[in-house]
Parts: sequence; structure tokens; C-alpha cells
Amino acid sequence: MTDQMTTEQTGNPVQGATVNGIHLETLQETVHAIEQASDLGQCRFRARNIWLGGTRNRSTITGFYGARQEIAHKQTFELHADEPPILAGNDEGANPVEHLLNALAACVTTSMVAHAAVRGIHIEALEAELEGDIDLNGFLGLSDAVPRGFTSIRVNFRVKADAANIARLKQLAGYSPVLNTITQGASVDIQVEPQQA
Amino acid sequence: MTDQMTTEQTGNPVQGATVNGIHLETLQETVHAIEQASDLGQCRFRARNIWLGGTRNRSTITGFYGARQEIAHKQTFELHADEPPILAGNDEGANPVEHLLNALAACVTTSMVAHAAVRGIHIEALEAELEGDIDLNGFLGLSDAVPRGFTSIRVNFRVKADAANIARLKQLAGYSPVLNTITQGASVDIQVEPQQA
Repeated sequence: MTDQMTTEQTGNPVQGATVNGIHLETLQETVHAIEQASDLGQCRFRARNIWLGGTRNRSTITGFYGARQEIAHKQTFELHADEPPILAGNDEGANPVEHLLNALAACVTTSMVAHAAVRGIHIEALEAELEGDIDLNGFLGLSDAVPRGFTSIRVNFRVKADAANIARLKQLAGYSPVLNTITQGASVDIQVEPQQA
Repeated sequence: MTDQMTTEQTGNPVQGATVNGIHLETLQETVHAIEQASDLGQCRFRARNIWLGGTRNRSTITGFYGARQEIAHKQTFELHADEPPILAGNDEGANPVEHLLNALAACVTTSMVAHAAVRGIHIEALEAELEGDIDLNGFLGLSDAVPRGFTSIRVNFRVKADAANIARLKQLAGYSPVLNTITQGASVDIQVEPQQA
């Protein structure tokens, strides 16, 4: 508990104080609630997906479980996937592995920005370029020796912030849930059931 | 090489034949090219992301490297991320871990559909529900003992297909690159550099 999101890093924030566009009081209310009752941190995030034919499909995201309750998003989010022509699609959406890179970019960015905010580290601008390697010999089943997923992913951030804080920001990236899911792995249980007529 | 995407599973497809909305000839041209020269399978997928303040950011995806060339998408894809109010955002986009669930859903779906197509397994309808567990004590730094990423993800597919093929479809899900990235892990290298003025 030496490096957490508490007011220890920032003192008592001024009412309504915002750092990096993050409303500190809102974030710290969540943190303090979980500090008092750790089971409040247990979340279940969800998505539904429907196949639209060929290489197209669409996810809808409406809510999640957290803080011991079902929480509805303010709106329903729709995300579209397709494949480029070389992979037999029509390029009507980013492909699934590109969606994964987006998830990683978004998560590391938000993790850096939020953890920086509670530590009083100001960020003026932040952008990232990501690139990941996949050998299709794995996915296509042409070689069992070739991994089917990404083997290596590179994330290059450019940040406008006090130079003294740049090494610290890189360290804060390590809090990202998507980063940790990819580097540490997670168990995935897949069930396939017949659709009821 | 006993279970791959070749015409061995399907015989010689009729010119223009489509199974599950997948144009078999297009897909198999890619497969045959990689069979002849395995380095054609090496791909680099990419995304750029820009922070929009607070918990909002946006990825753009314009192209990738594959088949020894840069390939531009037909259009630029934009993906938006935000956080719900309880996590100090305004709910203007799915959050990063929800984007990860979308990537997983999209990838397993497309992998099943495409691998089924070349094996002559017809799918009439396919949908999935996903749910993944995250304990925010990890992300927030409240406990070093709690994983920061997803620990467990459940994917429940409902499929309309010949009942005899359902176990086979579940097996084909195992080709998914995003599934393999999450279950097997990938190395992620993060660099943070100062932005040029």
C-alpha cells in the first residue's frame, strides 16, 4: 500500500479540483469507498456480440456491475468489426486485433493520466503509436509451431509534461488493466450452445 | 499441418463459392500464397491514439503491413474510449476493458466463422455474451496482491448450426488471435518520450 490512489499523494484536494481533466474528488470518492470495503472493487464488465455474416460482427455494451450494483451506461455503445479484403472482408470496421490495440492504447493512456492526476503530475498532451506482430501461419493453422496471437507489441508515447516526470509516467502505465491482461494473461472460458429456435 | 485452411477440407470450391458469407476463393488465395512463401504471413497491425483530456481518448486505424506490403484500409476507423461517472468519466465511449471484450468477441466469432467456412460447416446465426472479472483494488494500487487486469473471462456463444458441428465449432474458436493473446500473453514494450515542441 505504498503507491496507491489516495489523498496522501495530493493532500486534501480543493473542492472541485481537476488535474489532467480528471475530477479528483469523484475519483477519490470511489477509491475511499473501496478502501473502506474492499469488495466494492469487484467489477464485472460485459459485452454482447452478434455476427452479421462473413467477417462482420457488432458488439453492444450497455452496462456493468460494480460497487455492488448494476450500473447502466448513459448510452449504448456499438462497436463494429470486419476484415480487410486480403482477409476476405469488406473493410467495414477495424479488425479484431486492431480493436485489441485500441483497447491497449486507451487503457494505458487512461491509467497514466488518472494515476498522474492523483499524484499532482500535470500532462498537457499525450499520444501513442502502437504496432503489434502476428504471423498468420498460426491463425491459419499452417504451422502449430507459430503462435496464433500477437507475439510482441510496441507502444510509443509522446507526452508533453515536465521532463522530470517522464520516467514516472512510464511507471504509472503499469497500472493498466488491459496491459496486465495481455502481459499476465487471463483465463477465458468459451461455451458454445445451440440457439433456441 | 493436419488441421489447416486448405482446400483439403472442402475439395476445390466452386468459382465464387461462399460459405457463411466468406468468399472461399479470396481466403484460400491468401492461404495458398502463405503456404508457398511462409514469410507472407508476417503482419504488423497498428493504431494511433490521442488523449482528449480526462478519461477520453480516440484511436485511429488507417492500415497495416501484410503480404510484404503496406496495405491501407478503405477508410479510417475511429474508436472512442471514456469511463463511466463512477470512474471519473462522462460515459462518452466504451471503457478500455469493454473494448478488450469487444476485441475478443469479434475475433473468436470471425475465427469460428472463417475456419468453419473452409471446412464446409454452415452457420446460420451466431451471437455471444461476454463477462469478465476485474477487482479495482489492483488498478487503484490498493493491494499489490490483487491482479490489475481481467482474471477470468466467460464467453457464451449461441449458434444456429447442425447440432453435430457444435463441439467442432468450439474447437475452431481456439484459432482466434485475440483469444490466444489473452490466454498465452504477449510481450508489450512501452516507451514514453517527450513530445517535440
